[in-house]
Formats: sequence, structure tokens, C-alpha cells
Amino acid sequence: MDKRRLAILGSTGSIGVQALSVVREHRELFDIQLLTAANNSLLLIQQAIEFNAACVIIANKDLYQEVNEALTPHGINVFAGMDSIIDAMATSENIDLVLSAMVGFCGLEPTLAALRSGKAVAIANKEPLVAAGKIVMQTAREHNSAVLPVDSEHSAIFQALQGEHSPIERIFLTASGGPFLRTPASELSSVTASEAVNHPRWKMGRKISVDSSTLMNKGFEVIEACWLFGVDPSQITIVIHPQSVIHSMVSFQDGSVIAQMSTPDMRLPIQYALTYPDRLPLDIPRLDFYRLGGFTFSEPDLTKFPCLGIALEAIKKGGNIPCAMNAANEIAVEAFLNEQIRFTDIPAVISRSIEKCSFIKDPDLNAILDTDKSTREFASNLIARR
Amino acid sequence: MDKRRLAILGSTGSIGVQALSVVREHRELFDIQLLTAANNSLLLIQQAIEFNAACVIIANKDLYQEVNEALTPHGINVFAGMDSIIDAMATSENIDLVLSAMVGFCGLEPTLAALRSGKAVAIANKEPLVAAGKIVMQTAREHNSAVLPVDSEHSAIFQALQGEHSPIERIFLTASGGPFLRTPASELSSVTASEAVNHPRWKMGRKISVDSSTLMNKGFEVIEACWLFGVDPSQITIVIHPQSVIHSMVSFQDGSVIAQMSTPDMRLPIQYALTYPDRLPLDIPRLDFYRLGGFTFSEPDLTKFPCLGIALEAIKKGGNIPCAMNAANEIAVEAFLNEQIRFTDIPAVISRSIEKCSFIKDPDLNAILDTDKSTREFASNLIARR
Repeated sequence: MDKRRLAILGSTGSIGVQALSVVREHRELFDIQLLTAANNSLLLIQQAIEFNAACVIIANKDLYQEVNEALTPHGINVFAGMDSIIDAMATSENIDLVLSAMVGFCGLEPTLAALRSGKAVAIANKEPLVAAGKIVMQTAREHNSAVLPVDSEHSAIFQALQGEHSPIERIFLTASGGPFLRTPASELSSVTASEAVNHPRWKMGRKISVDSSTLMNKGFEVIEACWLFGVDPSQITIVIHPQSVIHSMVSFQDGSVIAQMSTPDMRLPIQYALTYPDRLPLDIPRLDFYRLGGFTFSEPDLTKFPCLGIALEAIKKGGNIPCAMNAANEIAVEAFLNEQIRFTDIPAVISRSIEKCSFIKDPDLNAILDTDKSTREFASNLIARR
Repeated sequence: MDKRRLAILGSTGSIGVQALSVVREHRELFDIQLLTAANNSLLLIQQAIEFNAACVIIANKDLYQEVNEALTPHGINVFAGMDSIIDAMATSENIDLVLSAMVGFCGLEPTLAALRSGKAVAIANKEPLVAAGKIVMQTAREHNSAVLPVDSEHSAIFQALQGEHSPIERIFLTASGGPFLRTPASELSSVTASEAVNHPRWKMGRKISVDSSTLMNKGFEVIEACWLFGVDPSQITIVIHPQSVIHSMVSFQDGSVIAQMSTPDMRLPIQYALTYPDRLPLDIPRLDFYRLGGFTFSEPDLTKFPCLGIALEAIKKGGNIPCAMNAANEIAVEAFLNEQIRFTDIPAVISRSIEKCSFIKDPDLNAILDTDKSTREFASNLIARR
């Protein structure tokens, strides 16, 4: 493949760090043009020096001076603030591919700016697709910019679709079931944040780990899949597959199902997005079918995990409802991680917040930003009043 | 897809009948130019009339008059004898695609004739690839003719490879394990022909069903896969998967594994070969992962199923040894079906026959035909002398 000029938004997070470990193995194929981080200045400085980044942006402006002093001697340009990130996406002409690995809704504007300027975007940051998938995909189409999935499930679907000319009949979106798959429903009200972030199969950031434990993450992934692959929610079946070896499947009108599997390791879908359509060598443990034991499959329990039901309802309602759901979820998860609310309060906060949201059928970007803002306020107040 | 002009060699066998059931559902896409059968004149006549075949050939010349009298009033041309089949493959210019679904080594010469004249060949008849894979693939390359797999395993591999630009790391060739997977080894000497042909997952012809019960069929498939996909035998892992849902898998250098699955139904791989690269609607039961139960995987038992070990050895030896193995196997399986030898005598006959074969490293077609003939004689005598 030709050398790619890369920007990593969120380089100090779990996905960003793993993306740089992929780049480390294939240094000749990538130029690191830009790294950004929210607050982790120390790691950002280390990364920028190791990968000889052309430019870094620290979102938290209070940390600008520290980062600038450390990197200026290395000839690395330093900027600060979210506006600088959006500006770099909109204007920089020496970036081919953006890995969007920020956490939460805040990734929306940089992603849109990158797509508008014709850059390919590998999307690990799912909240923008959940909240504003229609706008994201429309922007990509209008500017002929590629959107590449990074989530293991969506990468699996994307891999399964390579070389296929026929319409998708059904997507089987697999799910590990999270850390509470076998926890009795009655015990969920007392689970702790550290139990929730202790995912059995995947090492991930704290926010997505909580979303996985509530199965809200799987609901998000249904919405994401609808936008990325142009299917209706009714064409998606969620399959609990606790072994996390099959990362998802696609079926076609002849009844054939194509599945993608691997040892659960995010470096694989990250690398696939960064090197697509090539597959480069990757040193992850190979599947050993003689020792794997078996695979099991089952239906998700929507009573025990109401967040998933809320998400499936939100997709059907459409409009700005998924955006409101996402905003309330971000607030509720943060409150749970800060021990302000219980695990079982998360769906309650989200449901109440959705009820309060004024429905807009075809929201533009401003309506999405307004919905996000007002829902965050409502959910925060709801939690504060408890 | 554009209309395809089709020849089915072996139209009255299990694959032929299922191929015509596929054609029946998509009549507008196929012209049946030629149907051939060995002996089943009654069914051949019915098929020729139903599908308005341009021409039929009955291999058994004694049945020519019967077939000719039945079909001449319908304006269908009738010929007889294997030579006529080979001749039609070599000369007919109104055939685009040949489904080679004859049983055994006898399919080799028609297949080669078709490939030499530039026709695409969908190969369900695996013995020619086992005995003379190098010659078959070389002929296809020289005449720029397509070879399309029909076996469910090889179709799965072929489907998994669509759109891939990267080299194959490994093929996981799945196997149901056959009807005797759980039969104690000590009872195998007394199993009957009707037990052997009673396959748990697939409805197939008698010869291939016995090959499946000895696992010789899986050894054949390893050889077939090496030729079709250009891999070394060391890159193929046989995985016993009794549910027969995953039809095979391919892994790549990034550790990703692509698998193809479906309800076990040969119409799917047959249709895929006939309509490739399109997928047409096919009315087979869809996989229901909530009700499937689980998948299991294990290693084949080469002690209990010595035919598989013989086949794996034969591939390593190469040259004309797989041809000798195939010839001895055809004779031994026929003798077993005729109750002349026991199930456990099959590997003994094959091993003795391979020992007697004079090794030729790079056999031409004549050497292959000679090896086939002399090994058949040797194996027949061995059985007659018992």
C-alpha cells in the first residue's frame, strides 16, 4: 500500500494507543501528521516524540504550555482546544486518513469537518453515528469521503461484505453479553463501577465498558450498523455469543452467511481500517479450533438489560431521539462511574430524558447540537435532584 | 446476470438433480444445452423434456435406442457413449458453463476437454482433481478457463476469498465426522453399506457417502483445496464440526478468519457456482442462531479413520500417488457396497495398492490414465483373491 498520512483524534485513549502500536509495527507505511488528546498531556508528549508527529493538539487549554514546552524543541507544532481540532480537520491538506477515537458526542464536529474536506475517516467513536448518523453519512456521500468502521462488530460486517455484489438479507450482530451476563437481575442494583468496567473479553475504555455492561453499547451498534451499511433495524439480529470469537455475520438472499472471527484483539479491526483494503501481518494469537471449546448463541434479555430495549425503541422512533438517548446515557454513565447513581438507575435516567425530549423528525446539525445540550442539562438536573 | 448456456454432466445423480432444481427456480437465466447420464435413461428423458434440452447423451450405449425414441419427437438430439460426451465438451460452441457432476475418475477427460475449449467448469466431481489436479489446473490456466468449486467446503473457501487481495495463511476445512464419528473403532469392521451411506447431515450419492464415512472424502478435499486455491497441504487444518453449519474457513496474515455458513443444503453451493459472482434468491431454511444450540470443534482421529491418514500421506508424496489412491479407493468402495469386503478392509486395499504403484514424479495425462488403469486391476485382483 502507499504511505498514508494519518491523524489520530484521541491518541491517548485505548483505541489511540492500540492504533499507535499498529503504526509502530509498520512505520514505513504511515506518517503521523496529527495526534490529539483531551487531558493526558504526558502520554501525548511521549507519543508525539516517538512517532515524530508533525503536529499535536491538546483539547484542555490549561495544558497547552506544558505540551508546547516539551515539544517545541522537537520541532513539533502544538495547538490547544477543540476548535483547533475542528479547524485542523477542516483545513489540513496533508492528512489522508483520520482515526476518530475520541470518547462521546464531542467527536461529531471534528468528524464532520474531516468528511467535508474529503478525508477518509475510520470511526471508532460511535456516539456521533448514534446521535447524528444520517448527517454523518450524508456528509460523507456529498464529499465522496470514505467512512471506515473500527468497532470489531462493524469491521467484521465490513470484512464479510468485501467482494459481495448482492444485497444484505440480515446482519447477525454478536455480543459477548458483558460482565453481568450471568449475574442475577436482582443483584444488578448493587454492582459497582469497577465490576462494570471489568469486561470479560475486551480491554476498553471506562465509558464503553459501562455501555457494554448495560448492553447500551449493543444498541448503539445496531444504530451504527443501520447507518454504515444502509439496513433497516428489522434486518439486524443481536446474538449473544459469550466466547467473542465471531465478531459478527452477514447473510444474503441465497441463505449464505459470511462471518468474521479472530481472537478478541482490537488491533485487528484498527489495523484493517488503517490499511484497508490490504491485510498486513499482525502478531495476535491465532484461533486454535482444537482448543477453543465450543461456540454458544442465545437471545439477549431485554428485561434484565433495559438499556438495550430503550436503544431499539429509539432507533424506531428516529429523528433526534437517538441523540437524546446518547446524551442522557453519557451523563448517566458518568454519574454511575462517580458513584452518584446505581447501575439500575442508568436506564431510568435515560428513559425520563427521552420522554422530555421534543421530537424532531429530520433534525439538522443545529437541532442535534441543541438536543444534545438540552438533554444533558435535563439528565444532570435529574441526577442532582435525587 | 446474463443468460447462461449450461451443460450438466451427470444430470441424474444427486448433484445433477439438485442443479436442475436450482435451474427450475431461475428458468429465465439458463438454457439447458446438454444433459448426460450414465444409465438412468428414464430420469434423463424426463429431465430433457422438462428443461427442453438441446441435446442429451447417455453414456451406456445399450440405452441409446430407448432414449432416442423418447426424445426425437421433442426435437432433442440424442447421442450415446463417453466419447460423445468428451466430443461435445471439445467441440460444442453453444455451452458457456459445464457442471461436472459425474461420479469418479471418468469425469477427467470430459473436464479437460471442456477446459481446453475455453468453457467454465463448475467441478462437483472431485476425483479428477484428486488424481490429476495439476493437469486440470494447468489446462484451465493455459486456456484461460474458469474452474468453480461446487463442494460445500470449497465453495465456502471460495466465498470467503471474494474481495480479498491478501495471501491465504491457513484453510480450516470443516468435516461433519461422518456417520461413524461416535461409533467405537472396534465396531467398524461390522458396519454395513446402508449404515455407511446414511450420512447425518448431507444427502449425497452412495459413493461419496462411503468416502465421507471413511473420511477419505476429507482427504480428497484437502488435495482439491491445494489445487483450487494454490496452498500447501501444511496450510490446511481439518476441523471436525459435527453441526455442519460452518462449511469452511480461511485465515489471513492479520489473524482474521472468514467463514461461510448455512443450513447444510447442496443447492446453495451449486447455485453459487452456476450464478457466480451473483447471489440469487434461494429458498433454504435460514440459520436461526437462537435455536442452533452450539458449535463444537475437534481434531480428526487418524487411527480410527486410517483412510484420512493415507490421503494426507499421498498428497505429501505427490506425483501419481493420489491417482493410485483414488483408483484403489473407487474399487474398494464399490466392493464394500457390493458386500465383497468389510468397511475396515477399504484402507487395507488402498494401502496395498499404493505400495504397488511405481512412483512417477510429474505424470502427464497418459501416465495418469495408466496409473488409474493398472491400480484398478491390482485392487480388483486383490479383492478377488481374498
